[in-house]
Amino acid sequence: MTQMNRRILLASRPQGPLSPENFKLEQAPLAALAEGQFRVRNLYLSIDPYMRGRMNDAKSYAEPLAIGDVMVGGTVGEVVESKHRAFAVGDKVTGMFGWQDYGSSDGTGVRKIDDSRVPLSAYLGVAGMPGVTAWYGLNKIIAPRAAETVVVSAASGAVGSVVGQLAKLAGCRAVGIAGGPDKCRYVVEELGFDACVDYKAGNLFNDLKAATPNGVDGCFENVGGEGLDATLARMNPFGRIAVCGMIAGYDGQPVPLKQPSIILTMRLLVQGFIVTEHLDLWPEALGTLTTLVSQKKLRYRESIVDGLEHAPDALIGLLQGKNFGKQIVKIA
Amino acid sequence: MTQMNRRILLASRPQGPLSPENFKLEQAPLAALAEGQFRVRNLYLSIDPYMRGRMNDAKSYAEPLAIGDVMVGGTVGEVVESKHRAFAVGDKVTGMFGWQDYGSSDGTGVRKIDDSRVPLSAYLGVAGMPGVTAWYGLNKIIAPRAAETVVVSAASGAVGSVVGQLAKLAGCRAVGIAGGPDKCRYVVEELGFDACVDYKAGNLFNDLKAATPNGVDGCFENVGGEGLDATLARMNPFGRIAVCGMIAGYDGQPVPLKQPSIILTMRLLVQGFIVTEHLDLWPEALGTLTTLVSQKKLRYRESIVDGLEHAPDALIGLLQGKNFGKQIVKIA
Repeated sequence: MTQMNRRILLASRPQGPLSPENFKLEQAPLAALAEGQFRVRNLYLSIDPYMRGRMNDAKSYAEPLAIGDVMVGGTVGEVVESKHRAFAVGDKVTGMFGWQDYGSSDGTGVRKIDDSRVPLSAYLGVAGMPGVTAWYGLNKIIAPRAAETVVVSAASGAVGSVVGQLAKLAGCRAVGIAGGPDKCRYVVEELGFDACVDYKAGNLFNDLKAATPNGVDGCFENVGGEGLDATLARMNPFGRIAVCGMIAGYDGQPVPLKQPSIILTMRLLVQGFIVTEHLDLWPEALGTLTTLVSQKKLRYRESIVDGLEHAPDALIGLLQGKNFGKQIVKIA
Repeated sequence: MTQMNRRILLASRPQGPLSPENFKLEQAPLAALAEGQFRVRNLYLSIDPYMRGRMNDAKSYAEPLAIGDVMVGGTVGEVVESKHRAFAVGDKVTGMFGWQDYGSSDGTGVRKIDDSRVPLSAYLGVAGMPGVTAWYGLNKIIAPRAAETVVVSAASGAVGSVVGQLAKLAGCRAVGIAGGPDKCRYVVEELGFDACVDYKAGNLFNDLKAATPNGVDGCFENVGGEGLDATLARMNPFGRIAVCGMIAGYDGQPVPLKQPSIILTMRLLVQGFIVTEHLDLWPEALGTLTTLVSQKKLRYRESIVDGLEHAPDALIGLLQGKNFGKQIVKIA
């Protein structure tokens, strides 16, 4: 009996907003393992904004997906079959096995994980790529000093929530931007930010001004658009902006920056980064993050959808800001 | 007989484009020198884009001028009277003595200059603040490697002309953006840039694309607006943009940046700077620049207007791109 593998492919390139028709769920029989390979049963799939960019046929930091390719994605899972010396059946691993039930690998880019200190799914969030993204942008670009003010957009999300908590641990004033009163309450009351501005309340600049009485020294930008314009207008001299995401621009038209001249007048440093280009720093970052999670000094929230078939809706919802916490799909 | 000092004041803040009515020429008697001061007869006045910003009542990197203040400006001149031990009558000096016939000082920020190697007026341009500006942005922000491509806007101007020539000396491909065929011809034929794009020809992006077949690694931005949008769209991964001027935004409305998401997708570094905040590096920069000028390895061009009373028109023309080379007013 041949075992089947469900997988979700890129069916067509989105023109404007993403829709379910851009994806296709299909089944294919599992191929036999080659020598030196192992097979993983995917348990959790991470849903992240960068996936939208990979669906375009555009010059970007990663090769675009081809039509018919399995959607890319980070996963955690369990080794179920192995012809590899270093990976045994039962090992828990994290890697980029994509939107499917099973994946196979020769070990490249796959990391064994320990679920005794933190739960498996956390390796897709606070103790995984989003956590390292937050750690890198905050420590290596913003490099905040105590008592400085750090603003982070998408503050209740997988990256933003870690940015603000690490900024607090560094002695900074942490101010979030998030959508709706529930998320803002969570950011302040559960994550411990000093303030959170609700961009849906229609008064973004003035609310941000009130929340940043000493101006802004560091901005961790996950979104772009109106929130970035407002934060830019609050920057202090020699402020630093880590550009991690421009979600507002992925799904449709580019969003302009209204007052780029502030970069000059405030002598700002603005730097874009991709965390996977700094793999040398991952062990240090992951060590710090895992310890902080196990000590309950870093809190996180997950939004888990059950079933691989719901992954497209999970990504569409993420791009519309509908998720609340790290978006994950439970595959098995 | 009391000697009179002609001086030009800020008469009113410009609303939109600058006009002659924003200035007032008046005369006032010279005050007696205090002990420890000296008086300078200004010979040449530098006209620079930053002056426009100082006329606004807006948060910027420098305090705005008050109505009735003498317009600020760098000058070279000769000491004509001295109660200061270190400055003697006949000394040639450069400092910020402003838009007037005479200035006095206790020596703060005043530098003696030697006109035996380079002409006096060059200390306002290639061997002065504009030259150091070019040197700093190119070497400390762009930090180009040989064979990289560097684009500079306002390429025939006081700063841009030095940026491109220093980039060539560093082994780079230097591409300018300038207005009109005369300036572009000068940039290529006399300054030795590899190419120069005429932004007035109406085909800026495609012309820049043709001039940068390997993309752009460094951008020295003096202008902003359409040229910056076009250059941004040509940036290679890990490119650096030194933001030195946003002249298009000074005179009227802010000019947006169309595709800020490129900062992320190309992992760019964008940094604004003000050269007067890096005074520790001026001796090194000026030493290099003066040597290169005396060796004829750095060429420059001046646009000299005769008479202090013409300084307002010189600044208005500069902001409209009418000057050709470093804009200077000959006072005496």
